[in-house]
Amino acid sequence: MPTIDLNCDMGESFGAYKIGDDAAMMDIITTANIACGFHAGDPSVMRDTIVSARENGVAIGAHPSFMDLYGFGRRRIYGERPEDIEAQIIYQIAAIQGMATALGWPVTHVKTHGSLGNIAAEDETLASVCVKAIKAVDPSLVFITLPYSQTMLAAEEAGLAVACEVYADRRYLENGMLAPRQMEGSVIHDLSASVDQVLSMVCDNRIPTISGSHLSVNAATVCIHGDTPGAPATARALRDRLSEAGVTIAPFTKPKM
Amino acid sequence: MPTIDLNCDMGESFGAYKIGDDAAMMDIITTANIACGFHAGDPSVMRDTIVSARENGVAIGAHPSFMDLYGFGRRRIYGERPEDIEAQIIYQIAAIQGMATALGWPVTHVKTHGSLGNIAAEDETLASVCVKAIKAVDPSLVFITLPYSQTMLAAEEAGLAVACEVYADRRYLENGMLAPRQMEGSVIHDLSASVDQVLSMVCDNRIPTISGSHLSVNAATVCIHGDTPGAPATARALRDRLSEAGVTIAPFTKPKM
Amino acid sequence: MPTIDLNCDMGESFGAYKIGDDAAMMDIITTANIACGFHAGDPSVMRDTIVSARENGVAIGAHPSFMDLYGFGRRRIYGERPEDIEAQIIYQIAAIQGMATALGWPVTHVKTHGSLGNIAAEDETLASVCVKAIKAVDPSLVFITLPYSQTMLAAEEAGLAVACEVYADRRYLENGMLAPRQMEGSVIHDLSASVDQVLSMVCDNRIPTISGSHLSVNAATVCIHGDTPGAPATARALRDRLSEAGVTIAPFTKPKM
Amino acid sequence: MPTIDLNCDMGESFGAYKIGDDAAMMDIITTANIACGFHAGDPSVMRDTIVSARENGVAIGAHPSFMDLYGFGRRRIYGERPEDIEAQIIYQIAAIQGMATALGWPVTHVKTHGSLGNIAAEDETLASVCVKAIKAVDPSLVFITLPYSQTMLAAEEAGLAVACEVYADRRYLENGMLAPRQMEGSVIHDLSASVDQVLSMVCDNRIPTISGSHLSVNAATVCIHGDTPGAPATARALRDRLSEAGVTIAPFTKPKM
Repeated sequence: MPTIDLNCDMGESFGAYKIGDDAAMMDIITTANIACGFHAGDPSVMRDTIVSARENGVAIGAHPSFMDLYGFGRRRIYGERPEDIEAQIIYQIAAIQGMATALGWPVTHVKTHGSLGNIAAEDETLASVCVKAIKAVDPSLVFITLPYSQTMLAAEEAGLAVACEVYADRRYLENGMLAPRQMEGSVIHDLSASVDQVLSMVCDNRIPTISGSHLSVNAATVCIHGDTPGAPATARALRDRLSEAGVTIAPFTKPKM
Repeated sequence: MPTIDLNCDMGESFGAYKIGDDAAMMDIITTANIACGFHAGDPSVMRDTIVSARENGVAIGAHPSFMDLYGFGRRRIYGERPEDIEAQIIYQIAAIQGMATALGWPVTHVKTHGSLGNIAAEDETLASVCVKAIKAVDPSLVFITLPYSQTMLAAEEAGLAVACEVYADRRYLENGMLAPRQMEGSVIHDLSASVDQVLSMVCDNRIPTISGSHLSVNAATVCIHGDTPGAPATARALRDRLSEAGVTIAPFTKPKM
Repeated sequence: MPTIDLNCDMGESFGAYKIGDDAAMMDIITTANIACGFHAGDPSVMRDTIVSARENGVAIGAHPSFMDLYGFGRRRIYGERPEDIEAQIIYQIAAIQGMATALGWPVTHVKTHGSLGNIAAEDETLASVCVKAIKAVDPSLVFITLPYSQTMLAAEEAGLAVACEVYADRRYLENGMLAPRQMEGSVIHDLSASVDQVLSMVCDNRIPTISGSHLSVNAATVCIHGDTPGAPATARALRDRLSEAGVTIAPFTKPKM
Repeated sequence: MPTIDLNCDMGESFGAYKIGDDAAMMDIITTANIACGFHAGDPSVMRDTIVSARENGVAIGAHPSFMDLYGFGRRRIYGERPEDIEAQIIYQIAAIQGMATALGWPVTHVKTHGSLGNIAAEDETLASVCVKAIKAVDPSLVFITLPYSQTMLAAEEAGLAVACEVYADRRYLENGMLAPRQMEGSVIHDLSASVDQVLSMVCDNRIPTISGSHLSVNAATVCIHGDTPGAPATARALRDRLSEAGVTIAPFTKPKM
């Protein structure tokens, strides 16, 4: 029976600032990528998010970023030494892992955030920095990476387990990259089309590309957006339709108390 | 044979900013309290400080603070919920512990920084928050506390190991508190007087007070200042004089590779 | 004909984080206190808020705070030198004043934020620091202060114009202070009671106290909350009821293009 | 008689962190570029630096940066909207201008810091953003720019006064750019060679290039480094040698009380 995970960025509030409807999403997703305080999140938000995930049986991961609260980790930052970025990622994973372990719901994976993730997907050096950092803290952590990315290659080469992440609402180029948002037809607005794309990925191990060809894929998790209005309703509808189609929705990692 | 530890706050540089002569101090002290990024320090500074401590056989600890880079953790901050401060302390200890473990030189203790430490020493609620946070991350960590403080009481009540910290260059009041700096005679400027005070504490388990009486103490570590000009020379002289007097200088915890 | 101003804290979003429904409030209030980047706000948010105020004919002011983004300026911070807080306030007022002048809608007043305002209202030294800072940047700025506060006294003594701020939804103690929120009956939930209280202040220059007595007041502006759900509707209702009662709603300062 | 200005980045300390020997440099230079709190500096540091400049008759300018305290403004940051960077620059200039005016020593120029300056020198859009921001706050401010840069072109096109900045200790490429540091011979270590280069620029209006040719230049100010050990001695020696060669050392702008 085909199985897929639904992952979503969570815990991105900060101090007095709230972002996303985490309570609603926690009931729908199976894996939460939790901000670690560099682009979003603070210790209290992290604790609350971990506790909520534990209560909902949602697997959790570190969601490290460039040090960039103002830019929410979306500014593209260059010019840091690789060893410094490595230290930043280690710090973030360690912080949430220690906190999560104290709360009885250990971290099981890592997903890089925003520009850190986008640049690493295309940059061999940064991809390798991410992999080294994860292995340094805990080599049993799973790394969520995009298919056909430098991060996936670096992880596989280093013997780090990967969970391949796909999109329900974005079309793919022939080289396996996401079609840029500004390209016509790159975003899928129709639920049935989204469901069909995921079913192709999950049941047939094939990514349909925007030009009509197919790429092979071993999809482990679908990226769910949580910070747009109506996000919970969209996510719930996708989950229900996948379930009805016979897909089991479950975390790709087994969280343990 | 009497034994004492010399501890110093380390790793308080940040980005382009350097503070303290850590390289010189690392050769003199036996325990380093390493800033965790909230009042000072950044992931690269933390890594470099941990590596340097490992190479010098210096035991390391987390040095958590209020979230206050601008004030270097010295601003007195009120109005946060205890559970939020607890989360902040857990985050900081976890971050450095994970990083240190990855570098093969685990954290063995905690010492609170600046105003967090000062307020907790007198405030039962905050003292208990610190103790809860430490135990949540790792109940085998040792807590450096001042004698006759709320933090020491809270730790002992909770079964957390404490290392009692004394000063070589400050006089004590009859209640065991440090005489305030503005009080005449509260700061000891003479090396021999400092050495005598430490010898009394270490060999006779007695704190001489400013009024001539004595308090009992079980001193484990002497607080060494690292951020004043001439700090390494002063610290070196104290260490040498204590050694000559037959005191063994060694970490109060056994760091293990 | 009695006249009153309605002021509201605005521009408190930061980066990706949104707080408050500024667009809705701008249509209701007559004066906006704009965050200056220390507890909230960033340069883009400031620019957008100034432009929106200009388009709505809403007078604007600087809303300086302690340096405390994490705590949203609500943490009570002690231990800074008065001259350093003075410099922080000057910096914030200058930043928004220069920006507002560039946008053709100059700043006309100052209202201190959160804990800075709360502490200054009771602390003579801090009150005087606020007044000095305002006068240093522009002695023609009006200072919004609470009646019977140290800030009002300090301003009057220094010859700085004040606008006395009252609350529609809070009861007052006999000494002119707000009754603490935890005191029963301290918060007015009924619109008619709120309107009556404001009418007493505006038409009769009297504050009814919680014990039934009255204090004299020269009310210039009513504090409107903007960051709770339903805030615009509540504010709109208050404004409409005051208008119906014959009160003119207008800025206490005349903004000029 | 040939005249030149010596400018140096100043006021880059932050909180407990000190950087550079500002006191020594203030006695040597004629123009100070003062950090505005985004990459370095804080309100107290700004005030102290302005006061010191006033007492030494040193002209002052705003030294705005990307929002990047951790990276000291040296991280190369992309992906922000031009209007947001414009707002950031306006904010920074306004903050220091208001503070400096309050202290009786107004800002007379702007020099962009670190990566903001480096990217703007080569990027037409960012260059134009800088120029727009300066003009919005005060069109009488002078913009320190590199010769043959996009910033100089943008300023001249917009009618903003420029002060052309040259280096004493760096060689130039044929296109007027600085030879990259990693290129052999790009850094001039010999004082006499530095003096000769400046004399050529100041007296003959010619930049000698690394390949032996010359470019025309209208040099207004020499960039002096202040944050390396021995910086004051090097700067003092250069100043003395230029004076001995008959060059007047004076601010390119006239600061007025």
